[in-house]
Amino acid sequence: MKFCTTCGNAVHVAIPEDDNRERHICIACGEIHYHNPKNVVGTIPLWGEQILLCRRAIEPRKNYWTLPAGFLELHETSAEGAVRETLEETGANVKIGALFTILNVPHIGQIHWFYIAQMSSSDFSPFTSESTEVALFDEATIPWDDLAFLTVKTTLKHFFADRTAGKDILQPGLIPHLTDLRPVVS
Amino acid sequence: MKFCTTCGNAVHVAIPEDDNRERHICIACGEIHYHNPKNVVGTIPLWGEQILLCRRAIEPRKNYWTLPAGFLELHETSAEGAVRETLEETGANVKIGALFTILNVPHIGQIHWFYIAQMSSSDFSPFTSESTEVALFDEATIPWDDLAFLTVKTTLKHFFADRTAGKDILQPGLIPHLTDLRPVVS
Repeated sequence: MKFCTTCGNAVHVAIPEDDNRERHICIACGEIHYHNPKNVVGTIPLWGEQILLCRRAIEPRKNYWTLPAGFLELHETSAEGAVRETLEETGANVKIGALFTILNVPHIGQIHWFYIAQMSSSDFSPFTSESTEVALFDEATIPWDDLAFLTVKTTLKHFFADRTAGKDILQPGLIPHLTDLRPVVS
Repeated sequence: MKFCTTCGNAVHVAIPEDDNRERHICIACGEIHYHNPKNVVGTIPLWGEQILLCRRAIEPRKNYWTLPAGFLELHETSAEGAVRETLEETGANVKIGALFTILNVPHIGQIHWFYIAQMSSSDFSPFTSESTEVALFDEATIPWDDLAFLTVKTTLKHFFADRTAGKDILQPGLIPHLTDLRPVVS
């Protein structure tokens, strides 16, 4: 951020009075500009024993496989956003189920949420404007080495572990997996 | 938003190519500016059978009682933010427990999160820079008619209902109450 959204003059970085963090402050009108983590919402779209994944048409992680997900928009709920993103990225209509994972990714200022979702039919688009390829996978065929994000891998690992353990993952109101992901420091 | 954060020129509102929502777009450099919901994180601070509430020193809802909570900051997790806000608003150190409620408030672009938290001792500040009064309440003495926000009231109602029903609310990994709150249309 270089300029104030209110008056268009330059901002500088300083700790405001009565605060303890650096903020962008306008040198002309004094407005303090805050930046907060964003929510990325998506689904685990289920068709029988299979899961629908999509291959990213855009950066970051272009060409890698992901669960459908994207930034939550103003004036929609987390579930509404997850359904919308699923439709946009895969062409599939889903019935939203239980919230399954919430993954804090603090080093990039994001929180990723994944809901269990049932595909309303076997219809989906083989590609969309956001995905070069959309396909159903069994547990054995998930492209583990070509997944776009650690939050997707973590969510899929939890899903298969819970299914193997016989947990009723389709039932709303289940225990979500609340995880904090941080960069690996070697 | 009136001016571009990147170049300081005016923005206008239009739907970008390959999008379906109005955004703020810079008339000079073309940058698209997105606005997304913010997370408000807090706790239900417990001391024995009692809950710690604080009376707001600032708008909105100045002088009304609330659970300690505030905007999640960049580079912290939802739990870290909840602990920080509790300390800032009440002076109490807490040990974070299970995530208890997640409340979408889409009409104001916010999501409110409340964690169960155990106070580490009976110490807290009778007032802070953000609270004119901080006090412990029993279920019978909660100031129901003077609570600041519907999300706080909803969370407290769930808490007492679960405790009355004998649910083990202190155990991490419980079912969170996931609620969407919308304005009442009469």
